[in-house]
Amino acid sequence: MQKARAIIIREHGEPQAVAKLETLNLPSPAAGEVRVRVKFSPINPADINVLEGKYPIRPELPGTPGVEGVGIVEECGADVSGLAAADVVLLPHGFGTWREAGNVAALALVKIGSDVPLEQAAMLRINPATALVMLREFVTLQPGEWIVQNAANSAVGRCVIRLARHFGWRTVNVVRRTELVDELKADGADAVLVEGEKISAEIKSATGGAPIRLALNSVGGDSATRIAGALAFGGTIVTFGAMARQPLKIPNGMLIFQNIAWRGFWITHWYERAGRSAAATLLAELASLAARGVIATPVEAVYPLEEIAEALAHAQRPQRAGKILLRCSNP
Amino acid sequence: MQKARAIIIREHGEPQAVAKLETLNLPSPAAGEVRVRVKFSPINPADINVLEGKYPIRPELPGTPGVEGVGIVEECGADVSGLAAADVVLLPHGFGTWREAGNVAALALVKIGSDVPLEQAAMLRINPATALVMLREFVTLQPGEWIVQNAANSAVGRCVIRLARHFGWRTVNVVRRTELVDELKADGADAVLVEGEKISAEIKSATGGAPIRLALNSVGGDSATRIAGALAFGGTIVTFGAMARQPLKIPNGMLIFQNIAWRGFWITHWYERAGRSAAATLLAELASLAARGVIATPVEAVYPLEEIAEALAHAQRPQRAGKILLRCSNP
Repeated sequence: MQKARAIIIREHGEPQAVAKLETLNLPSPAAGEVRVRVKFSPINPADINVLEGKYPIRPELPGTPGVEGVGIVEECGADVSGLAAADVVLLPHGFGTWREAGNVAALALVKIGSDVPLEQAAMLRINPATALVMLREFVTLQPGEWIVQNAANSAVGRCVIRLARHFGWRTVNVVRRTELVDELKADGADAVLVEGEKISAEIKSATGGAPIRLALNSVGGDSATRIAGALAFGGTIVTFGAMARQPLKIPNGMLIFQNIAWRGFWITHWYERAGRSAAATLLAELASLAARGVIATPVEAVYPLEEIAEALAHAQRPQRAGKILLRCSNP
Repeated sequence: MQKARAIIIREHGEPQAVAKLETLNLPSPAAGEVRVRVKFSPINPADINVLEGKYPIRPELPGTPGVEGVGIVEECGADVSGLAAADVVLLPHGFGTWREAGNVAALALVKIGSDVPLEQAAMLRINPATALVMLREFVTLQPGEWIVQNAANSAVGRCVIRLARHFGWRTVNVVRRTELVDELKADGADAVLVEGEKISAEIKSATGGAPIRLALNSVGGDSATRIAGALAFGGTIVTFGAMARQPLKIPNGMLIFQNIAWRGFWITHWYERAGRSAAATLLAELASLAARGVIATPVEAVYPLEEIAEALAHAQRPQRAGKILLRCSNP
C-alpha cells in the first residue's frame, strides 16, 4: 500500500508543539473517490485557533488541519465522471489539506483551469470567497458606489480592494500603519486612512460626501463603531473577524435612529447554506479572476510539510507582508 | 375668528415648566384642509424627551407637542372629498396634537370607524403600530412560532403579547418585577420571566427547546445581549428603545458564528418609508383590532389640557400601570 505524510494533531496546545508530521497508509480510492496529490495549502489565522483549541468548531482528534488547498488528481476510483488524472482541483473544507495526498469524494472537488497559479488557487476558498460574497450578499452596490473597511491590509481586505476596483466600486480603507497607505493605493484603493478617533468624519469626507451603505469589519471594538459611524442612514456593517478581541459596542441610537444593521458573516456557514453548485460557481469565478491577475494574495513564505513548526511560528508573527503557504508535496 | 387653546413650548427644559396652555386664532380651513376637534392624545416617552430637547428630532420652536391623537371632523374646506363632519380621524405626526382643534390637510388624515373607543384610537399610531410592524417586518413568523421580548410590560410590550396571541405566535416575556408575571400571563403571555444573569438559558427552556428567531429589545445594555443569546442561529434582534440608557455590547462571535442580525426600528422612519397608503392600511387594521378589543392599551389617567403640568409630572412617574392621556376638548 502507498504511504502519504500528513500533519496530525492529537491534542490542542501551542501550534508548533502539537502539529506533528506522520506517515499514513494511503489505500486506493474507493468508488466515487479520487486520489489527489496536494500541492499547496495556506496557514490561515483560523487554523492557528483550531490548533490551540480556541475555535468555535473543534474537529475530532486525532486529525489533520487545513481547510483549503489545491491538488492534482492522481487516480480516479470507480464511478467517477468529469475528473481525470492531472486535473487541477480545489480541495473541500473537511479534507484536512495539510497532507501530501489523500482520497476524497469526487463530488466535493471543484475542477479549475490549469491557467490559475497554484499558490493562488490554494487560497481561493476562504479569503477571496469571503470578500466577494460580502460585497454581493448584503447590499446591492451600484456602479461607482463607495464601501468602507478596516484592517484593509488583511488578506480579505486586499482582496476587497482588488475586487471593488474590478467591479467598479470604490473603497475607503482604514489601516493602523501609515506605511501601508501608498502600498494599498498602488493596489487600487481609492482612499486609505489611518485609524484614529476622528476616523468617522475622515471617512465621510474621503467620499466627498457620497453616502456609504456597506462597511466591512474584521477588527471589532471601537474601530467597528467608528466605521459604522460613517455609514449613511440604513447602511449595513458586516462583521467577519475580531482581531482586536474586543466586543462590539453600539450606541442604541445608531440602530434606532440611523437604522444601521449589524450583521455577521462566516464563509463556512455560507458554503453550508449555498450548497455545492453555488459554491462551485463562486470558486470558478474566483479562479478566473485569479488567472487574470485581478486577485492575487501576497505570499510571504512557502514551507515544506517537514518544516511545519517553522511555518506555524512564522504565521503567528505580526505585520507579515503576506500569507504563509505549505508546499504539501514536491513537484 | 374662532379661537382654540393649545399647548405651546417656546424653549426646552423641564417639561412641566416649558409646556404652556395658550389661546390661538383658528381660521377657517383652507382648500384641501379640514378642521378637526381633537378628542384625545397621549403623552408618550418621546414627547417628554422632545420637551427636554433630548430627542434626535427637535421640532421648531415655538410649537405644539403631541405626535398622535384622535379627533372629529368639524368642517371641510373646499376640494376635500371622502371626509365629512362628525367623521372620526387619526391625526398625522406633524400636526401637534396637544390642542383643542386645528386645520390639517385632508390627505394626511386617516378616517376610522366610530366603533373604536376614542381613548384607544388616540394611541394607535405609535406603540401598536410599532408592535405590529416589528412582528412582520424582520422575520416571517410561522404559526406557533416563539418570539422573545424584554420590557414586556411597556405599551409596545403589552401590544406585542396581544397581537402575538391573536396571530398565533407565542411569546417569552422578560420583565424586571415579579409582580407582573401573573398580570402578563392573564393578558395572553405564554411565558413570563424575571430579568437576571441566567435569563438566556431560562428563555431557551421556556420554549421547550423550540428555536426563537425574533427578539424585540427596548432596554439595551446587558438585557439586550442576554435575550439575543437565546436566539437560534441566524436570528434577528430588533432594538426600538433604550430604557436602560446603556450601549449595546455584543460578543463578536454572536454575529460571526451565530449569525445573529442586530437591527433597529423607529416607527417614524417606517411611516416615511412606507408612504401614505401603506400607513392608512396599517392604521385601519389596528383600528379594527382595537374595535374588537384584541389590542387595548391600559390608561392610568386622563387629564384636561389645562392640567398639562400635572399630566406631564404623572407621565414621568416610574412603574405606572398605563398611559397618561390628554382630553384635548370637552364632549
